[in-house]
Amino acid sequence: MSNSTNDAEIEAAIIALERAALDRWGKGDPWGFTELSADEVTYFDTGTEHRVDGIQELRRLYTPREGKIKIERYDMLNPKVQVHGDTAVLTFNLIDHIRTAIEQTDERWNATEVYCRIDGKWKIIHTHWSYTNISS
Amino acid sequence: MSNSTNDAEIEAAIIALERAALDRWGKGDPWGFTELSADEVTYFDTGTEHRVDGIQELRRLYTPREGKIKIERYDMLNPKVQVHGDTAVLTFNLIDHIRTAIEQTDERWNATEVYCRIDGKWKIIHTHWSYTNISS
Repeated sequence: MSNSTNDAEIEAAIIALERAALDRWGKGDPWGFTELSADEVTYFDTGTEHRVDGIQELRRLYTPREGKIKIERYDMLNPKVQVHGDTAVLTFNLIDHIRTAIEQTDERWNATEVYCRIDGKWKIIHTHWSYTNISS
Repeated sequence: MSNSTNDAEIEAAIIALERAALDRWGKGDPWGFTELSADEVTYFDTGTEHRVDGIQELRRLYTPREGKIKIERYDMLNPKVQVHGDTAVLTFNLIDHIRTAIEQTDERWNATEVYCRIDGKWKIIHTHWSYTNISS
């Protein structure tokens, strides 16, 4: 098997893992992401005042969000996976179409997910979410 | 040499590379970062409307900033390096103390730099800059 075939398989596997976690997230279930994350995970998003370190701290951050999120549909734009051995860096822009009783809005994100193969399983070791600049 | 000693050396090397690029950036020289980045680099920051792909696109983004930046001092807060083989994920919070004729402000950042050892040299393959949330 050539390296490029191998990389294409890794790319598809990583994107499928991310989509499965995003699907759960959009239904108010944040635990897809914590199940996919390694104990050592580090994490930034627009709501944090400093880096979140470790799976326990991430679980605490997500607990108040359980059942609160309702994303009708999302668009994962232009996903790219940079594979280097047992590391795969997934990046994409995301549009969340949020539809709740009190909120109907679209949110645009820059997304970074660093996956590492640990004991044969792909796990997220770093996440960074930020808002996309919309100047146009 | 134990793995942990080795990782500590990698950690120190990665932070030194990042600081050298930040030092140049603060003096109006953005090219420290492009010299440190691999051809394949992917890039997000608060000013981009979508992911920047590749060193040429990053050079185009940085060209208008040459000579425009003046950061008197910066604080790299709580840097962490997650080493997995030839990959090292550097994360930190950054405070830029900006002092120009027209601007005196502090900017607070979440910073992600994914380094890979390529042909024996550590290179950035992904960068993500976003503003830290300041609720307090």
